[in-house]
Order: sequence, then structure tokens, then C-alpha cells
Amino acid sequence: MKITLLDGQVKSYDEPRKVLDIAGDIATSLKKKCVGALINGKEVVPSEAMINRDCKLELITERHELFSRVVNYTAKLVTCLALERVFPEGEVVPYEDNLDTDEFFAFFDYEKGLKFDDLKEVELEANKIIKESLEFNFNTTSLEGYVEEMKKTGSSEEFINWTLDLNEKSYIKLAIGVLGGVPFLARYATLAKTSDLFKIEFTQLTGVSVENGDVQKSIYKIHGLTAISEKDFKELVEKIEEIKASDHKNIAKNLEIYHLDPLIGQGLPIWLPNGAVLKQEIKKYLMEKEFEYDFIQIETPVIGTSDLYKTSGHWEHYRDDMFAPMFLPKEEMVLKPMSCPHHISVYNFKPRSYKDLPLRFAEHALQHRYESSGSLTGLERVRAMELTDSHIFVRPDQVKEEFKRCFNLIQEVLATFDIKVDYLSLSLRDPKDKEKYFDDDKMWNNAESELEDVLKEMDLEYKKMPGEAAFYGPKLDIQAKTSIGHEITVSTIQLDFLLPQKFDLKYIGPKGENERPIMIHRGLVGTYERFVSVLLEQTKGVLPLWCAPKQVQIIPVNIVANSDYAEQVRVELRKNLIRSEIDKRDERLSYKIREAQVRKVPYQLVLGENEQKNGTVTYRTYGSEEQITVSLQEFIDKLREKIDRKVYG
Amino acid sequence: MKITLLDGQVKSYDEPRKVLDIAGDIATSLKKKCVGALINGKEVVPSEAMINRDCKLELITERHELFSRVVNYTAKLVTCLALERVFPEGEVVPYEDNLDTDEFFAFFDYEKGLKFDDLKEVELEANKIIKESLEFNFNTTSLEGYVEEMKKTGSSEEFINWTLDLNEKSYIKLAIGVLGGVPFLARYATLAKTSDLFKIEFTQLTGVSVENGDVQKSIYKIHGLTAISEKDFKELVEKIEEIKASDHKNIAKNLEIYHLDPLIGQGLPIWLPNGAVLKQEIKKYLMEKEFEYDFIQIETPVIGTSDLYKTSGHWEHYRDDMFAPMFLPKEEMVLKPMSCPHHISVYNFKPRSYKDLPLRFAEHALQHRYESSGSLTGLERVRAMELTDSHIFVRPDQVKEEFKRCFNLIQEVLATFDIKVDYLSLSLRDPKDKEKYFDDDKMWNNAESELEDVLKEMDLEYKKMPGEAAFYGPKLDIQAKTSIGHEITVSTIQLDFLLPQKFDLKYIGPKGENERPIMIHRGLVGTYERFVSVLLEQTKGVLPLWCAPKQVQIIPVNIVANSDYAEQVRVELRKNLIRSEIDKRDERLSYKIREAQVRKVPYQLVLGENEQKNGTVTYRTYGSEEQITVSLQEFIDKLREKIDRKVYG
Repeated sequence: MKITLLDGQVKSYDEPRKVLDIAGDIATSLKKKCVGALINGKEVVPSEAMINRDCKLELITERHELFSRVVNYTAKLVTCLALERVFPEGEVVPYEDNLDTDEFFAFFDYEKGLKFDDLKEVELEANKIIKESLEFNFNTTSLEGYVEEMKKTGSSEEFINWTLDLNEKSYIKLAIGVLGGVPFLARYATLAKTSDLFKIEFTQLTGVSVENGDVQKSIYKIHGLTAISEKDFKELVEKIEEIKASDHKNIAKNLEIYHLDPLIGQGLPIWLPNGAVLKQEIKKYLMEKEFEYDFIQIETPVIGTSDLYKTSGHWEHYRDDMFAPMFLPKEEMVLKPMSCPHHISVYNFKPRSYKDLPLRFAEHALQHRYESSGSLTGLERVRAMELTDSHIFVRPDQVKEEFKRCFNLIQEVLATFDIKVDYLSLSLRDPKDKEKYFDDDKMWNNAESELEDVLKEMDLEYKKMPGEAAFYGPKLDIQAKTSIGHEITVSTIQLDFLLPQKFDLKYIGPKGENERPIMIHRGLVGTYERFVSVLLEQTKGVLPLWCAPKQVQIIPVNIVANSDYAEQVRVELRKNLIRSEIDKRDERLSYKIREAQVRKVPYQLVLGENEQKNGTVTYRTYGSEEQITVSLQEFIDKLREKIDRKVYG
Repeated sequence: MKITLLDGQVKSYDEPRKVLDIAGDIATSLKKKCVGALINGKEVVPSEAMINRDCKLELITERHELFSRVVNYTAKLVTCLALERVFPEGEVVPYEDNLDTDEFFAFFDYEKGLKFDDLKEVELEANKIIKESLEFNFNTTSLEGYVEEMKKTGSSEEFINWTLDLNEKSYIKLAIGVLGGVPFLARYATLAKTSDLFKIEFTQLTGVSVENGDVQKSIYKIHGLTAISEKDFKELVEKIEEIKASDHKNIAKNLEIYHLDPLIGQGLPIWLPNGAVLKQEIKKYLMEKEFEYDFIQIETPVIGTSDLYKTSGHWEHYRDDMFAPMFLPKEEMVLKPMSCPHHISVYNFKPRSYKDLPLRFAEHALQHRYESSGSLTGLERVRAMELTDSHIFVRPDQVKEEFKRCFNLIQEVLATFDIKVDYLSLSLRDPKDKEKYFDDDKMWNNAESELEDVLKEMDLEYKKMPGEAAFYGPKLDIQAKTSIGHEITVSTIQLDFLLPQKFDLKYIGPKGENERPIMIHRGLVGTYERFVSVLLEQTKGVLPLWCAPKQVQIIPVNIVANSDYAEQVRVELRKNLIRSEIDKRDERLSYKIREAQVRKVPYQLVLGENEQKNGTVTYRTYGSEEQITVSLQEFIDKLREKIDRKVYG
């Protein structure tokens, strides 16, 4: 049996050997630190696992990137044991969830019902178990012994058969873990003993729907935090708090950006006044930029006949992502998932000449996709979205130039918002996937090499992503990351040789003959929904002055005595197209000032006796303690200048 | 028998008497001029009709407003006779259509199929019949004779029974007309003989669907023009041409405003580049005005659950006007026909205080209504429309003030566009219609008197229209007329005490108690679709400079030599947010200038050798022959000043 280590070293053994002992063979100190191993880069096994075949083996110690998962898995098992001790009538569910998060999870079925407060006792018990310093035992056994022990874990026969099947392929043969006398399914590595954990703290109790045979069942999901030391635990809590603070859902709630109402429908955000202003200011700016780059705005219906999407191929490729059709007496209509066929209709509305190209149709277009309710996330993943869309019709000799122009526009716009780009993705087809991609090697090779050439000409770095192309052609995606690490596409430029063919698009060439244009699909900043979610996360809600929903919070020192002057100031600001609001509530001045800071309003005006008498305003900017008194006109000039230049802050 | 004349004079007769003889009794000259009579303000009868009961009688002569209808009816009968002579295998259909138009119509069923060209021969025959000077004979007869003659007109038994029923109530008893030996149904008045007409000219051949028992059948509709003199005929043709020229459909086609594509769907206009600019410029202006009037923009989804509309009452009252629902796995969704419930959701999103009111939510909101395909008309009647919508939530003490504020805003906006208002309609409920209107007399009386009070306070003239209110309350509609005389609502202000009740809306009063707000629904300029149709008709396509899609047409004298300078001018205009386009076509200069006039572009720049050398432009304004040469900067300053002030021309 040959074991290949990470550094390429090969160890040979005549007999099966435990991971722990292999670690000891390398260095005695390693044996103490080793908590498990990663086999062939795929399977994580406990340190007690017996290796019986040739493999590549990575020892997992505190420095390994999977160590935090092992810690979380350990905490999960401790929590399960605590649950069994506190609620013996309940049932721990052997449901494996994604371990790649900062939190750990345990799953519990309990007919009597649980509230978060009920977990207090479980948390106490879990931390008691940590103090008990129980060892995680790990036994390989006979087939009969395995099945018997597995039944004790509360596993169904179906589940046991599934693990037996896994066993066949696995490096852990017929293995069961035992903690505090209670068996568990040993499919991952754990720390050696419970006291290797510093602490367990539960953060949330949610529900999750699991399938058991044909039955769908709702069970409890306990969320918790853990670490191996006080220092690590503190750092983790800080990290979680920071993520929460930069999660657009929390920021948006604080700023009153959007609102979801189940009576209106799932995944259909309503833009509240602040959100609508933000969105409309961004739109105004984008449209100005598009005007500067010679894009032409059009507006097309949000629905189309099913036949339209059958012609375009969307019906075949996107049917599952589309809303159910509406059956009218003479037509079958669907909410449009994309505007490409609509823009093609505008292209086809009259004959086009080679002199008319490039023809750049832009539309800030509402579209609908039927996302599963489980995947809906704030503004990031929704069912109704407005795309900053464009379709450019070009001659073959114009593709490269037009691509560069699009890229420049995108770069300029993202820079205005100071958006951090993660990387550029050159999304190509998977040549083997004949179902998703139309089968025309020449067309694909042509399009892909054209796209790659232009990226090289522009000296851009990019990752090649096979299988990520659209069904009609290759594309360049500009990627960013959300606060919780989701990777999303902010902007996109896509080449398309297919739709012009399907819709038989033409232009009249210089010699009067019919020629076929190429289409470029361009998403400027993606959808407003997603873009605003990125913007809120990257700015933590401190929006640039020019697009901040409320630019000035007016706070009269005395809501009776100073309210006329406050209103006068508000109207004067309004005349200069500056958005302000008077805080009319019966609250203390200091409270109102603090709250304006929490709401991240760029400027706060405090108006009292003196200001009223002198026609001045006293302002402070967001994040600053300094108070400055100037004439109202000076203040207006200062703000207008900043707004017009679109500078930050 | 007592006959009351128009001037109140009463004539008494012992026996039934012909209309013609009654005319003669008044004045001999009248007997010659009389072509029929209007009985009791309702029924038109031929001059040969025998009057046998007490009635009010108006003689119809050339000066009567119904005279042109009699002329048209005469032409219709002449056309029918001509059709029977030319296509004896076809069948004249006794289908009565609206006579209140400038055109007359005849209906014909012809299995072999007709084209407009086939009507040439019919037109010749009709004018021959005019020359033949045939008399219209009019016979009253026995029941048997009537039925027999009616059968000769090609009438079905069902139709004959219906006319017999009419006969009972009518002043024409068992009457049949005969022209050229062919009988016709004498249900209207005619001229005495065919030669009283000057001429017949056919203008169009269309199809129309008629019901015959259970069978729907498509028959031909022949459109024609006629008059009693050459002068009248010429005037009529001019009038028709003028109407055509001011029909928004023709203007919009010429200006490339919108486009309909059956593959996208019926009644779903696509805003072409010119239309989108026009719409967006109007929107920008309206939103600025709304900002000035303290309206707050929101954006809500274009769909909602069926439950939402069941709660609001729209399901019950508007179901037939809504698109078919989409059946999703867990929800039933519909395209929203109105945004009221969506705006209510925003109101309800957080607790509101009496200090927050009035709360003015505005949305330029897309909505869908399922209009029958037959009623769809250009931009005037569509299935998808964007409403300049608002819902204002007020305290009872704020209703009147807010109503005035809304009316002032509407007046200011309509004045900017110079829209001609026909009249104001105070639309009230029909108290007897318990199905449409919710049954709460107190609430209705309160709302209606409040609305009427404020109109009186504002000293406005209005027409009361019972039965025209919305199901939730009374309203003020601002009415205009289209080029073909359709009456449409441009703006509306509606009071609503019902929806706040249905959705249990509240605000916290000064003493901390819950109170109920009142809703005001406001349509600023109605839908963009309809408003643009009115604007195009009233301006005849000569749009104000600030919202003209193309503000400047650049025409290089030599498309090769002057094209760089033309592009330079275009870019400079673009920097100043002025929309221009270069005419790059290989056409003569004079042709291009003429075409820019036809397209009603406000300014044309002709750029040649001299302009290029001196950095000047030579411009002419729409409708003027004068050419003026100025520096480019002077031209830009002039235009910007006009655009910013939103002046006409």
C-alpha cells in the first residue's frame, strides 16, 4: 500500500494503518496535532480511520484550511449529544449540511415544538459536555455490528443502505463514532475530545424542510458558533457581526430601501421611497452615460407570446426559469425573462443599412424569472428585476471596436460607484454539452477567439470558464463578491451569432446585398436589484451624496419655535433639487442627531434661534463631530457642487 | 291626435296624416324641403310615414343636424342597389351601423370574395343610379304583405320578428321602402330621389364580424363618402383628410413613435427610439413637478397575487378587464390592473402618525388590462399602459386642501403642453346600481358633497355624470376629445373612503388613538400611451422643442467632404444634451431638407464649405424658409435657453 503525502513523499506499508499512526511516522509532534486527514483531495476521515488502499493523504492540523470545519463538526456532535440529554423524546436528525460557513448547524426533530429560549438549557448542557472532556471514539466493526449501531443513531434503513454504499467507495470501512455512549455517523473528522473546544453559543433557531422517503417534513435547524480558544471565539463573533453589518438586507432595512409583502408575491421587492430615489438617481446617471456613448433608449412590453420565445430558443433553454403562461382566448402570453427578442423586433421594424450600424438599443427593462422560493435572497436574488440591458447590432468588422467601447463604458460607470471587481470571467461553452449549446463549431470558435483576441489587445487579465457561456455565445462577465461570499456577475458583454440567424436579421450592404449583423448583449451594471445590493454592501450604506435618498436631515432645535424656518430651508433646498426632510418628532435633539447618523444621512442641519435670526444653517457631515455654521446659500452651493461632480461624501 | 311642433305650436288632426302633409300644413315651401321627421326626439321616420298618435315632431330639412345622416342613409341604399345589380349572387346585409360619422357604410356578404378594386364597378353603378333619379317609395301594407316584402330584403325570420316588435312601438306601421324595384327596410328617412345626391365615392373596404343566430360570420363593410352638392362634397373630403392628418396613428407612424408586433402580442406598443425619448422627456418633467409638489416616488411590482385583488375588491369589479392568471406552484399571480393595493402595502409597511400626512406616493406605474382585440386603437386603447399614478393618504381635515393642490398641479402640467380640455366631469355613483357601488349612503353622500363643495370653492364649471364614479368613490375627470371625436379622460382625482376600510388602514392621532385615513387616487396626465396620442393629435406632431425626439437634423451639403465637421457639431450638441442626427444618405440636399420638414424636426442645420471653414452653422426652424447663419456656440445657447424654459417651437 502506497501513501503519497502532500510534499510528494511516498510511504509504503504492508498492512492497513491508522491516520494517526501515519502522522506519527512522519513526526511525533504531528501525531498530537493531527485531527484527521483529507484523502485524494476529496474525503475527510477521522484520525482514527484505518487506511487500507493506495491514496494521496493530507493531514489536517490547526493550520489546514479544513480545520475550522472539523471544529464545527465537533461542536455539532456536542450539540446533538446535549439535545439528546435535554430533550430525550426528540430525535437528532443525521442531516449533513454545508460545513463551509462560519456557523455550525445541528438538526432536530421535536414534535412538542421548540423556541429559541428553549435552547438556553441545551447550550448549558453543551458547554457542560465540553468541560466533561469526553473522548470521540471511533470503531470499525462487522457488517452486523455496524447496522445495529447505525440503527441506534436513529437512521432509517434507507439511510443505512446509502451509507453502506458509501462505505464501499470510502476509506472508512464500517465505522461508527461514539460520544458519551451515544453513537453517531462518523463521516467526518472531529477533535480528539470535547474539551478541545473553548465554548458553544447558539445564535438562531430556524426551520428546514427535509425529505424522508416520500414525506416532506419540517425539522429544526440550530445555528451556533464555536472555536478552540477564547481569542478565536472573540474574533469569530466580530467577523460575524461585521458580515451582518455589511449584509445588504440589514443595511437596506435600516435605510428603508425595499419591502417584501407576501400578499403581493414572493421575491417581488417594492422600492420604498428611499429605494426608489436611489434607483432613479442611478438610472438617471446611467442614461446620461448611455446618451454620451450613443446608445438609443427604447421601451418594450414586459410580456410576449410563447411563440416569440419558441422562435428565440428561450422556451427550450429557459422554460424552467420562466413564470407560468397566461392563457388568453387567442394568445398564450408569458412574462418576459429577457428582452432580446423584443429588441430584435425593433431592429426588424424597418430595413437597416450598413451605414446605420452599430445600432445600440438600450433599455432599462423589467423582466421576470421564476426562482425557487428557497433561493430568494433580499435584493440579490428576486423574481422581478430591472436589467440595465442593451443589444447592439454590428457588422462583423465592428465587433472588436464595439466590445472595447462597451468595456470602457462599464469601467467608467463602476469607477463612479467605486465598485470592487473580483475578477473577469471569460465564459466559454463546454463543447461536449450539445444540449445547452447549439452545435456549430466554426461559429463558436470564431466567436470565442474574437472575444479572447480583444481581451488580449486590451491587456486585461481574466479567468477562462468553460461551460459558463450563454446558449447563444461566449461572454465576458465582470464578477464581484457579496458580504457572505456569494459570487455575482455585475456587468456582462456577450457575443451572439445565433439569434441573428434564428430571426433572419439583415442589413443592406454597400453593394445592395443582404448581410447578417452580429448581436452584442450588454448588461451595464446588471439588474438594479442586484447592483443596489452590491452597492449597499460595499459602501456599508454610506452612499455617495448625489444618490443618497435623503441628502439632508433638518433638525429644528425646537419643533414649535423653529419649524417655520425649517420649512423655509426645506423649500429652498427643494428648489435646488436637494432632498431633505424635517424631523418633526417629539424627541430629544441628541437622539435625533444620533439617529440621522445611524440612517447615514450625509448632512444634518441643526436649526435653532441663531440660525433663524441670521438666515444661516449649522451643519455636520456624516461621521464627523464638527459643526459648521454658514449662510444657507453657501451651504446650497457647496452641496450642489458636490452633487454635480458626483464625488463621494 | 295632437302634434306638438318644435316651437311649441300644436296641430290637431282627426285622422292619421303623412309627415309630408303636416309639413305642407305649416308652409308650402316646407313640404318641398322636408326629408323626414324626428319623433319625440328619438325616432327618425321618412317623410312618407303616416303619423297616427300624439307626439312631438321635428321636421328634418337641410338645416337640421340629422340631415347629413339622412343623406348618408340615402347613399347607403343606393350602394346596396348597386351591389345587387353588379354582384347578384352576393347578399346585402340589413345591418344597421352608427350613422353618426362622416362616412356612410354598406354591408355585403359575398362568398366569392371582394377586393377594393372590385368596388370600382359598383361605384360606377351607384353614380349611374344617382343619374337615373329613382324615387324612394314607401308603402304601408298588411301584415302578410309586410312579411313577404321583408323576406325579399334578405332578412331572416328572427330579424323580421324583431322589426315587427319595433313596429308595435314605432310611428311607422308595417312599412317597406322600395328603390328601383328592390325593397329595403324603411327604418330611417331618405331623400326623395337618388338624384338628390351629388356623388358617391368609396374610400375603404374592411371586414366586420356579425352574429346570425349562433353563427359568427365575417362580412364586408364598404366605406363611402357622399354629399348633395359639389361644394359640400369637396368640403367633406377636406374635412376627412384633416382628420386623417391629425389622427395620432398616422402622425406616430410618420414620426416613428411606436410599433406593434403580433409576435410580441396584441395591444402592446413598443416605444421606438423617438417614442421612448418623447415619453422619457415627459416623465422627467412630470417627476420634477411631482418633486416640487412634495410627491414621493415609489416603485411596485407589475404583478400581484389574486388574493391581493380579492381583498381590494378589484377581483369582483374588474375581473373581466384583467389578464388571465398565472398558476404557480404555491401562488396564483395576475398582472396588476391598478396599483392601489400595492401603494396601500407601502402605507402599511410601518406605523404612520398624523404628522406624516398627507403622504403622497407617486408611481409611473405599468399596468395591464385585457381590452378586447376589436377595441384596441393605436396608443389610445392598449393592453399595457404606464399610468402617471398617485395615491395620497390624508386626514379628513386635509381632503379639500389636497384636492385643490392636485388640481393646481394638473392644471399647471396641462398648460405646459397646451392641452385643450373639453370639460370637467364630476362622476357620481348611480344610487340604484348596488352591484357596482358599495352600499353605504352616508359614505357616498359625504364624499360626493365634499367633492362638489371644493369644486364650488374653486369656482370651476363641471358636468355631473351619475353612474360614472369608480366603485370606491366619486371623482373629477378632466376630459378631452380625440381627432375622431372619442371622448377620453386625461387627468383624474378620485376620493376613496372604501379601500382604507377594506385594508384596515390607520394612523396614530394626536392623542395616540388609531384613526382612519382617506385615500385620493390621482392620475396626473393619465397613461403615457393615451397622453401621447392626445399630444400628437393636438400638436399635429409639431412637438415642443424640449420633448421633440430629434431636436436638430444635421444635413451635410457634401456627405464626404463635410461629414467630419457634421460629426463634430453632433458631438458638441450631445455634450449640451441636445439630440441631433446626421442624415448620411445619398440623397439630394433639397430632398433631405424637405424630409426633415415632413418629420417635423424643430431645427435643420445645413453644413457646407463655409460653415466648416468658419465654425458656424446655418439653421432653419420648422415651418420657416428663412436660413440664418450663426456660430455653433450661439446656436447651442439659443436652443438650451429654449429647452430649459420649455417654450414651444
